[in-house]
Amino acid sequence: MRFDGRNKEELREINIEKNYIIHPEGSVLISAGNTKVICNASIEEKVPPFMRGEGKGWISAEYAMLPRATGTRNIRESSKGKVSGRTMEIQRLIGRALRAVVDLNVLGERTIWLDCDVIQADGGTRTASITGAFIAMTLAVYELHKEKSFDSFPIQDFLAATSVGILEDEAAVLDLNYVEDSAANVDMNIIMTGSGRFVELQGTGEEATFSDEELTELLQLGKKGIQELIQKQEEELGASITALIKGE
Amino acid sequence: MRFDGRNKEELREINIEKNYIIHPEGSVLISAGNTKVICNASIEEKVPPFMRGEGKGWISAEYAMLPRATGTRNIRESSKGKVSGRTMEIQRLIGRALRAVVDLNVLGERTIWLDCDVIQADGGTRTASITGAFIAMTLAVYELHKEKSFDSFPIQDFLAATSVGILEDEAAVLDLNYVEDSAANVDMNIIMTGSGRFVELQGTGEEATFSDEELTELLQLGKKGIQELIQKQEEELGASITALIKGE
Amino acid sequence: MRFDGRNKEELREINIEKNYIIHPEGSVLISAGNTKVICNASIEEKVPPFMRGEGKGWISAEYAMLPRATGTRNIRESSKGKVSGRTMEIQRLIGRALRAVVDLNVLGERTIWLDCDVIQADGGTRTASITGAFIAMTLAVYELHKEKSFDSFPIQDFLAATSVGILEDEAAVLDLNYVEDSAANVDMNIIMTGSGRFVELQGTGEEATFSDEELTELLQLGKKGIQELIQKQEEELGASITALIKGE
Amino acid sequence: MRFDGRNKEELREINIEKNYIIHPEGSVLISAGNTKVICNASIEEKVPPFMRGEGKGWISAEYAMLPRATGTRNIRESSKGKVSGRTMEIQRLIGRALRAVVDLNVLGERTIWLDCDVIQADGGTRTASITGAFIAMTLAVYELHKEKSFDSFPIQDFLAATSVGILEDEAAVLDLNYVEDSAANVDMNIIMTGSGRFVELQGTGEEATFSDEELTELLQLGKKGIQELIQKQEEELGASITALIKGE
Amino acid sequence: MRFDGRNKEELREINIEKNYIIHPEGSVLISAGNTKVICNASIEEKVPPFMRGEGKGWISAEYAMLPRATGTRNIRESSKGKVSGRTMEIQRLIGRALRAVVDLNVLGERTIWLDCDVIQADGGTRTASITGAFIAMTLAVYELHKEKSFDSFPIQDFLAATSVGILEDEAAVLDLNYVEDSAANVDMNIIMTGSGRFVELQGTGEEATFSDEELTELLQLGKKGIQELIQKQEEELGASITALIKGE
Amino acid sequence: MRFDGRNKEELREINIEKNYIIHPEGSVLISAGNTKVICNASIEEKVPPFMRGEGKGWISAEYAMLPRATGTRNIRESSKGKVSGRTMEIQRLIGRALRAVVDLNVLGERTIWLDCDVIQADGGTRTASITGAFIAMTLAVYELHKEKSFDSFPIQDFLAATSVGILEDEAAVLDLNYVEDSAANVDMNIIMTGSGRFVELQGTGEEATFSDEELTELLQLGKKGIQELIQKQEEELGASITALIKGE
Repeated sequence: MRFDGRNKEELREINIEKNYIIHPEGSVLISAGNTKVICNASIEEKVPPFMRGEGKGWISAEYAMLPRATGTRNIRESSKGKVSGRTMEIQRLIGRALRAVVDLNVLGERTIWLDCDVIQADGGTRTASITGAFIAMTLAVYELHKEKSFDSFPIQDFLAATSVGILEDEAAVLDLNYVEDSAANVDMNIIMTGSGRFVELQGTGEEATFSDEELTELLQLGKKGIQELIQKQEEELGASITALIKGE
Repeated sequence: MRFDGRNKEELREINIEKNYIIHPEGSVLISAGNTKVICNASIEEKVPPFMRGEGKGWISAEYAMLPRATGTRNIRESSKGKVSGRTMEIQRLIGRALRAVVDLNVLGERTIWLDCDVIQADGGTRTASITGAFIAMTLAVYELHKEKSFDSFPIQDFLAATSVGILEDEAAVLDLNYVEDSAANVDMNIIMTGSGRFVELQGTGEEATFSDEELTELLQLGKKGIQELIQKQEEELGASITALIKGE
Repeated sequence: MRFDGRNKEELREINIEKNYIIHPEGSVLISAGNTKVICNASIEEKVPPFMRGEGKGWISAEYAMLPRATGTRNIRESSKGKVSGRTMEIQRLIGRALRAVVDLNVLGERTIWLDCDVIQADGGTRTASITGAFIAMTLAVYELHKEKSFDSFPIQDFLAATSVGILEDEAAVLDLNYVEDSAANVDMNIIMTGSGRFVELQGTGEEATFSDEELTELLQLGKKGIQELIQKQEEELGASITALIKGE
Repeated sequence: MRFDGRNKEELREINIEKNYIIHPEGSVLISAGNTKVICNASIEEKVPPFMRGEGKGWISAEYAMLPRATGTRNIRESSKGKVSGRTMEIQRLIGRALRAVVDLNVLGERTIWLDCDVIQADGGTRTASITGAFIAMTLAVYELHKEKSFDSFPIQDFLAATSVGILEDEAAVLDLNYVEDSAANVDMNIIMTGSGRFVELQGTGEEATFSDEELTELLQLGKKGIQELIQKQEEELGASITALIKGE
Repeated sequence: MRFDGRNKEELREINIEKNYIIHPEGSVLISAGNTKVICNASIEEKVPPFMRGEGKGWISAEYAMLPRATGTRNIRESSKGKVSGRTMEIQRLIGRALRAVVDLNVLGERTIWLDCDVIQADGGTRTASITGAFIAMTLAVYELHKEKSFDSFPIQDFLAATSVGILEDEAAVLDLNYVEDSAANVDMNIIMTGSGRFVELQGTGEEATFSDEELTELLQLGKKGIQELIQKQEEELGASITALIKGE
Repeated sequence: MRFDGRNKEELREINIEKNYIIHPEGSVLISAGNTKVICNASIEEKVPPFMRGEGKGWISAEYAMLPRATGTRNIRESSKGKVSGRTMEIQRLIGRALRAVVDLNVLGERTIWLDCDVIQADGGTRTASITGAFIAMTLAVYELHKEKSFDSFPIQDFLAATSVGILEDEAAVLDLNYVEDSAANVDMNIIMTGSGRFVELQGTGEEATFSDEELTELLQLGKKGIQELIQKQEEELGASITALIKGE
């Protein structure tokens, strides 16, 4: 039993508020326990310079935290005049993950920007960002699809992310909150599709290492969590969008 | 009659959600119509270098917009690597205004940081930030007061802000939304105290000018709006904090 | 009687040296007491990207201080690698003020750059910059007018600025020098046209507030000062340019 | 058979030139095929501010490429004035990996800096950096050990890294060069210890995904490569240092 | 005969206005023909971190141009956010040159800052800066000397600088203005002391080269110019300061 | 006799490894004693914006040191976010020197980039960079010449650089290493062509000055050293390229 009452293979409560901000083409407030992220999707009718003229689309993500999303106030990255290594790593990860389930040729020469702004943090902000950004992106692409009638729906599979880890007492657990994350020896982020394929696997020993057996147990827990998250995404997006994604 | 149905001296609907984020010492989500700002107050037990050893406190503000707070996506200031002139002007204004109603000697050698993050914008984001930041600051100072028992309550008056302007058809109106603000010839921000004194007055002709008579009318409208905002602040903060501020 | 011998409604001595620097299209060294600012106007035959193709002109200002313009040496903003919030606020103010008296459609698709470089500071540097920049700009536009024969003269009114304030002993005074400015509770910058209309009004309580009556007195003093400054501008520019501006 | 003649489970030729640069405490030129990296280890007798007074050491890495390490000249990051997201991600990875095999308490309050400068690139620069940096670090720590006589040798296990991937034709291969890396659907970096435990696992689908079975095959190949690399490290470091690391 | 009427070994007219700005410890406006530079000397009672506790002083220079010092407006370095290579090269040169004639041990643990701000440029701005900065520095040190009674006067020799060059028609000339400088094949800056010793010699072929004979001729011209400049410095500083410098 | 056994007019041993890096159009590893610099030449088929359409080429250089090229680790300029004044001065010098022996009209509208990366430093890094960059540039231009058949060979003379200096004991010496350089009173860099003409002369007193006689002796030593360096360049480039440069 974990200190917040969950068992080792239990996700925190997920809430998704669709159309949270009025301006973006797709917008979601996702909360996973006390972690809250605003995920906004914007459609821009052009692609980065290195891709122009190829007829393909692009997906790009940005991630930030409000200064008091955390227990102690952080200095704003705009005040520091530069984006930290951690932020860059996370936003590259979000963009790469989303691109894995989108047919960029069908999308056509336009960019989808995903802005993931953490307004309250309690561990797992990058995985909540991916799970929420998938919904925001899908809402935006669905509107575009209604307008443009793509030959097929550009989003070809569901996508969600969660974290798993090994705590100091060697227990493997699903969906770590901040206290657990700080104490974990091994931390792994798993991003998978609705059809059960891996998109990204990032396992890190924090001044620690892990064995083959531990890897197997972590992957097991992660898959279970992802399935529940994708179940939740299907409910939120509804039957008709789900069918489009599944190509049914 | 204005296009959103208000008459010329009518504020937009104000909503205030207290304790919105769990980590900060004071936190508020303020909405004025479609403008929504998260105002977080943090207490830091030190002051900037130029003030050390004087026994006085300091109040500092930062302001930012999420990229999709607006109709078109803005580039993040952290990505640009610098804070725009507009942002600096606004955060200097917020800090200066709040300092006008706080006895920094009573506060003692600590800094109150106010983070105003606009999650949705529809005009009047700087005035909503001030009105909301006053409540977040008061909540944080009240907690500090309970713990430290200051000789007197450091906050000595209420403080709110609103905008007034002259539209293209020469009508003076209160509390401009984005569409009105874009079309206004003259734009004035007024910051006043609960006792009806000016803290800041910023009237600007946008490729236009204004007369003495117009100034008088704008000030009239502004005062009416501020009184209503301070009425709302009193309700939200409750009788006992209101009494502390009023020194009753 | 003020410590430099002036009465409360007396400006410092104004000197204007026209054609001070040989290269710019318009150039002025303005001194207001010990405050000295070089104001250079440059004509650039293009406008910023966001305005291209509209056939309208633009006016942009930059402001800086030499490191030893002040009593203590300041670090150069180029060495710090960024422009301070104060500098940005001032240069935005100068540009906005000048645009209020220029018909940008008549000016045509070109930019006037105003560089205001304070070589010696004793309070009121931003208002001296505006008063001087108006002359530098007018000299540059007059040369352009002789060459291009605009249908009408693009500058449609005189423009000057001054400061007023309330000292610690509650006296309202005109044109504060550095010592007075440091001691003032309330500080107001007023920018007005030759025809007596407001362009910008910025009143600020420095950890202080002000009443309606005080506002009235400050505006009175400011108007008197502006009229004298515009009188001076007319003398310096001469009868024929004055007539062009007044549309006579 | 791969286009450079290797079979799918074959590493490129590894060469290690010890004491390559005269100044650093440890220095190595590592080449893996055409990829060449100078790895220098520096001992600094202090730790970052957030760790002072704890008696623990720290390991920090920096990574860079010469502009013509690659086929097309890259703009120098010092000229751009900022370090790219990719560079930050790699240098965080190198530091984290090395810390996993070092007992920072034994090391004591000092920092080991690892500078990995790629002078020629042909894929796998981050994994070659880790494999080479481990040797440079060990050489530096060995000198320190001779001087300080630590209670135990601070480096507690061998550490090496390699890449594996799935090519377009679905073949899983070990140690991708640049051409293979560009064409791969899935790319995985594996960092392991001499005792066969994982330190870091980063598997990424590049607009692609991978199955459980493919993961298993990739891990198999990676382990084989790592064992050969560690064999090579043992030879280069010699019997006595190898015994120290193995605690024999 | 040169196009401005000078012969080949003739300096432009030099004017020196002492105590030009009221705040600095030493201040000079130097003009050499149309080149005008404000040289301000500031005394700071500390030295850079790397020199603390040695009891020695330091001299540091900064150089800048107003945007319209030149025929075409330059972008301000503070707006670009960085100082150009040319600026850095010049300010390093000025500081180094001045340090060559000052006994830093006598000066004691303080820094003299020299700010050279070019308000109008017509070639030779760096040499005019050095010649003027020497006077500003001497005025500041003289005040310090009156107050502190150094054992000896810290400035031990006069110092001036000029340029020489070889024009397209192969004529060697003294003190190039902008037009000559742009057309010169070879450009040499010479910095010498009152006692005729070299402090710095920087000869540069601009896509051109020069022979031994040409070098000899350039040095000849330069020495003549420097002697005249130092003559002028002696006049401006007066007999008593001149005697202090000469140790008489 | 110098402490490393050389006499006063003796160069350190020079080694040149051609085609050191496989990707650049020209590549050299030059070592002068313990100073080692990788010089890479890249051809880019365009010129900087200010030169477009003139049909002329351009040569641009960049210079950097690895952090542990020196005895103490230096902070990377990319981490500091800006290039130091020293670096800028050196890279401007290298580019300017190389341009003096190249006919940019013959080269045509393309840029040659020279990257000089110091991997190990022991004094004289800028002069070794120039001597090595000349060879890398020549190798790259020779390849281009074979392909394009220029009317004449764009490189019109040999070019090499060395340092001379006056040590504390007043001895003038050739080719200073780091220890000598640190102790020298006067330091001079000389860049000359194969035909014995000066390209650049930079003599600097480090808190010291030098006389006419000392200048003469330094120039003598420098010329001798340059002749030996150019002899070495001829050997490395071979008879046919040497003939092309000499126009034979």
